[in-house]
Amino acid sequence: MTGIEKLQQEFEVYFNHRHFPASPATLYDPLELFLSNSGKRIRPVLCLMGNELYGDLHPDAFHLSAAIELFHNFTLVHDDIMDKAPLRRGKPTVHAVHGEPTALLGGDVMMVVAYDYINRIPSTFLQEVLQLFNKTAKEVCEGQQLDMDFEKLEKVSLEEYLNMITLKTSVLLACSLQMGAILADASKEDQYHLYEFGRNLGIAFQIQDDYLDAFGDPDKFGKQVGGDIQSNKKTFLMIHALETAQGNQLQELQQLMLMQSPDKVERVLGIFRSCGIDQWADELKDEYLSKALLHLENISVSKDRKSGLIELAYYLIKRDK
Amino acid sequence: MTGIEKLQQEFEVYFNHRHFPASPATLYDPLELFLSNSGKRIRPVLCLMGNELYGDLHPDAFHLSAAIELFHNFTLVHDDIMDKAPLRRGKPTVHAVHGEPTALLGGDVMMVVAYDYINRIPSTFLQEVLQLFNKTAKEVCEGQQLDMDFEKLEKVSLEEYLNMITLKTSVLLACSLQMGAILADASKEDQYHLYEFGRNLGIAFQIQDDYLDAFGDPDKFGKQVGGDIQSNKKTFLMIHALETAQGNQLQELQQLMLMQSPDKVERVLGIFRSCGIDQWADELKDEYLSKALLHLENISVSKDRKSGLIELAYYLIKRDK
Repeated sequence: MTGIEKLQQEFEVYFNHRHFPASPATLYDPLELFLSNSGKRIRPVLCLMGNELYGDLHPDAFHLSAAIELFHNFTLVHDDIMDKAPLRRGKPTVHAVHGEPTALLGGDVMMVVAYDYINRIPSTFLQEVLQLFNKTAKEVCEGQQLDMDFEKLEKVSLEEYLNMITLKTSVLLACSLQMGAILADASKEDQYHLYEFGRNLGIAFQIQDDYLDAFGDPDKFGKQVGGDIQSNKKTFLMIHALETAQGNQLQELQQLMLMQSPDKVERVLGIFRSCGIDQWADELKDEYLSKALLHLENISVSKDRKSGLIELAYYLIKRDK
Repeated sequence: MTGIEKLQQEFEVYFNHRHFPASPATLYDPLELFLSNSGKRIRPVLCLMGNELYGDLHPDAFHLSAAIELFHNFTLVHDDIMDKAPLRRGKPTVHAVHGEPTALLGGDVMMVVAYDYINRIPSTFLQEVLQLFNKTAKEVCEGQQLDMDFEKLEKVSLEEYLNMITLKTSVLLACSLQMGAILADASKEDQYHLYEFGRNLGIAFQIQDDYLDAFGDPDKFGKQVGGDIQSNKKTFLMIHALETAQGNQLQELQQLMLMQSPDKVERVLGIFRSCGIDQWADELKDEYLSKALLHLENISVSKDRKSGLIELAYYLIKRDK
């Protein structure tokens, strides 16, 4: 069993209980069900690893992991309302089954319970953890707003997209790691490098996600390949293609974005390939992965303690390799 | 100037600044505007009074007041989405102007900023304040869920309604007072009595609100009188009327609830009066006010320090007298 699997299992054992009171069941039961339909628990594992870097796991690190997992699930429930998504992890979303008001309120109470878990750690660390967590929570909301704003814009620059995706996705990974480290009383400098490891890893992960949506193996990807292209999403790939393509090719790409044709995905992919977008994305991903690993190197613990995080970085990034 | 007005003014001076970053303006500007369209700031004043009971105002009591005001406004923004309300305090609601996704996300980020304000108090009090605040926040969500559930029920008992309204309204008033007292390092027993003062006062306030919706002076009430009757809301009055009315009168009341006729409000009020519901409600309100004041008496500070809270209780309850 790898270090990741070990921590995933330990987290599941800890997390596998009711998080909410029994009543009102109309509010709480949908949330319990949603939480049990687990994802990969990446964020809790990051938090535990951030703590384990410095020695034996602090028992309270599980509380912080739970807080992050609840916060993450709160964002999923609310994002699904905003996106009017019918499915999540292959199952109907909370609002699709129980209505928007209950999903909205359920998300709210899930966030409160996240704060409840944070409040279980020793008070010496509480202020510092809350400061980081609140900053991150605000950024995640900002990222979601920017994502919605971008849908209405004709043109989004790579820099703007990078900022949006950093807020929406990466900072929570970074925060998870740093929260674990705060509880281990890590130095400010180590905390900074750990945060930056997570932030850069998150960006690499998103580049890969965008890449796989276009070029992934349908059997391995788990989602419909080409979904981003079908819905004209401004991804790393599309933004760079619009900045790179010239003349007729640019015109064709712009026209393809205005229509729905059976061969749309195929034709856009053709343009992506001919502009070298696939290779560019692969290199960009590696660039962020390298940045992440460099920050990890700068952390003042022995190399063998870092093996779990290196393993996790490759697990997250190389899933199609 | 009364003690209430003095604290309202001091709070406004403290609160009158931006609470959110400038960007993204699409997310934050609607919230700044919503917060500036102030209500009576009752909850912040309660928090300040709960603190002032024990001596000079602790400067950090303003942070806790702001947290409560932000939390309260977060619930308003989200409740308005759930209720599909077009207006709030005479102005269009956030979702009506900016769409549901932004209102949803705006509410979320307002709650996070509430926690940010709490995190500014000395760490010695942080855990205790958070525990109370989290418990209350969960209860407020539960109250809103029960309120929505009750709309679909044919029959709601007085006990069930009382529980719902306690959660939805009263506990936040109680929490506001107790948070101020925690910051003043008040004894557990005093905290309990102060909380119970607020909880009972909140119930009395709600009984009055239900009463005024039916029997209030339209010029003074500020809302359309009879609104609850028109929308068949199960209020203190309606629940008790359905439990009290007999024979033909009960039948008429039940029929009136199934239809919309021009004289509906008038006829329901006639039944309310003939069953003595108006007097019953007035007595019930006084009963809860007395309970509240009894708890206030039990608090171990000199009587003259309590004058502000007594003033506030009468200000809240006697607004139509």
